[in-house]
Amino acid sequence: MAQNATRYVAAVDLGGTKTLAAVVAPDGHVIARHKARTPARQGEERALETIAVCVERAIEASGLPARRIEAVGIGLPGPLDPDAGIVKIAPNLGWVNVPVKETLEARLRKPVFIENDANAGALGEHRFGAGVGVSEMLGIFVGTGIGGGIILDGRLYHGFGKVAGEIGHMIVQVKGPKCGCGNRGCLEALASRLAIVRDLTEAIAEGRKTILTKMMSAKKLHAIRSSLLAEAFHKGDKLTVKVIKRAANFCGAGVASLLNLLNPEMVVLGGGVVEALGEDFVDLVARAARKCTFEVTFEGVRIVPAKLKDDAVLLGAACVAFDRLG
Amino acid sequence: MAQNATRYVAAVDLGGTKTLAAVVAPDGHVIARHKARTPARQGEERALETIAVCVERAIEASGLPARRIEAVGIGLPGPLDPDAGIVKIAPNLGWVNVPVKETLEARLRKPVFIENDANAGALGEHRFGAGVGVSEMLGIFVGTGIGGGIILDGRLYHGFGKVAGEIGHMIVQVKGPKCGCGNRGCLEALASRLAIVRDLTEAIAEGRKTILTKMMSAKKLHAIRSSLLAEAFHKGDKLTVKVIKRAANFCGAGVASLLNLLNPEMVVLGGGVVEALGEDFVDLVARAARKCTFEVTFEGVRIVPAKLKDDAVLLGAACVAFDRLG
Repeated sequence: MAQNATRYVAAVDLGGTKTLAAVVAPDGHVIARHKARTPARQGEERALETIAVCVERAIEASGLPARRIEAVGIGLPGPLDPDAGIVKIAPNLGWVNVPVKETLEARLRKPVFIENDANAGALGEHRFGAGVGVSEMLGIFVGTGIGGGIILDGRLYHGFGKVAGEIGHMIVQVKGPKCGCGNRGCLEALASRLAIVRDLTEAIAEGRKTILTKMMSAKKLHAIRSSLLAEAFHKGDKLTVKVIKRAANFCGAGVASLLNLLNPEMVVLGGGVVEALGEDFVDLVARAARKCTFEVTFEGVRIVPAKLKDDAVLLGAACVAFDRLG
Repeated sequence: MAQNATRYVAAVDLGGTKTLAAVVAPDGHVIARHKARTPARQGEERALETIAVCVERAIEASGLPARRIEAVGIGLPGPLDPDAGIVKIAPNLGWVNVPVKETLEARLRKPVFIENDANAGALGEHRFGAGVGVSEMLGIFVGTGIGGGIILDGRLYHGFGKVAGEIGHMIVQVKGPKCGCGNRGCLEALASRLAIVRDLTEAIAEGRKTILTKMMSAKKLHAIRSSLLAEAFHKGDKLTVKVIKRAANFCGAGVASLLNLLNPEMVVLGGGVVEALGEDFVDLVARAARKCTFEVTFEGVRIVPAKLKDDAVLLGAACVAFDRLG
């Protein structure tokens, strides 16, 4: 192999429902990919084995000799220790203190590096998406929950205990609605898909009319997809518009806090809810944020939609692998 | 002058009521100081001249030849541009776009460097106070308002537009009480001395009993000093205890947001309210913060009272001068 041959890594996005693997070039080009259903809550061994198999399949599909893939980067949920390669807690997967790095290095015989998925998503957007060239950038991903990642001085910020970036758990409404984390009034409890669905369900139970109940049975509403929410929103369904505007206002308050606090150059908004609702949602958030921010703080700040969609975490995980390889 | 002679700087803390100047050694030792009343809202020329005179008097009092004082560092309110040396807005002083650096360099014939006062306070505590040796530290100063400063990787964090650190303007209660900044529900509107006084005044107007009305006339309550608040609190006055606990809870929610977001090693609490109430207030804040923070995020975090009291801004301003001199 020539000294200057292109280096490749495998990247993995381990989600609650699907496991995505790819072979990625240093310029972010995806050579090949493989996808499988995540065996969540069936023990960590099965989930880790699924990762390993997805990586192997992606490498096979790339047509590259396995030795050309120099490392594996994995984006996955939960507070984790990126140096030790251990996931501390991941409630969605049912994990506690899982040694991902050690287990998969033994299995795949390559260096394995892990990163929190929202952090990886922010890093992906920074290197290959909306935030290229920006020094201070925040990534906020509004989906079932709300995750975030902080880029300072062009690098992912981890903090003292390496668990920084929990933007979804900033408190924007003391004594507000209960959050999945056990606390009250977190941004996630007010502006995530689950919060939107909760507000819709409550309003429907109180007799509010909405086309949503024609689009699906009220009982199934808890599992409504962001795309259906977006359809009702864009059709101008009054209840949906009201509830989503409310969520966007809370999200804007969270962004305002972040701007007043960290004064970044750019805020990138991604995740299922933002993708489905598009620029409309981003505009609502930006307008709400502007109202609650000092004029000097808002000067020159850009609040923009994410560009990489489903690939943000995957490409961020690839960046982690390339960076750690050195 | 010998090459290795100690270098000195002059440091200034420009407050809304008093202007404090000192000659400071690199180890934080204050050689001499001079104090004057700040001529606030009487035009920037008079305030800047007061700074110049205080610096000259402090130098005289130090007994050092003026040439041994190599620069002047100034901590002062308002969003400002530390590189250009311009204060953008300082409502308390009535300033808009004041060229502090240029004006005082011409007047004092020494390099002049400026820094936001809360940033300077955080820097002072980091170098010479509670946060020595800590890599990620937040300084929160609860007084008439709430100011903050962020130390990351051992250095003051400024952000893209150089106006980061406005911890008092994180929104902890969307649609909450009106803040001086024009917004609603900022931490400052819920946990500052002004917020505490507002809550007390409202309760008294509603007929609530308190020893405060025996300590001073209700009309003068708006100007109550933190020391009197502390006296009523420590005497167990029910209303005062309730209102201060409420403020501490909001402050704790703000600290929790900061911990979840930035995962620092230490939070230093200072300012008039904290100094007057002492460890009691710090404990209340820490307990409230712990309740709203992930266990892994709280691990090893220290929430402590400031050490430098009135000298935090002054010594931070000295650090700015030494740092910028190189």
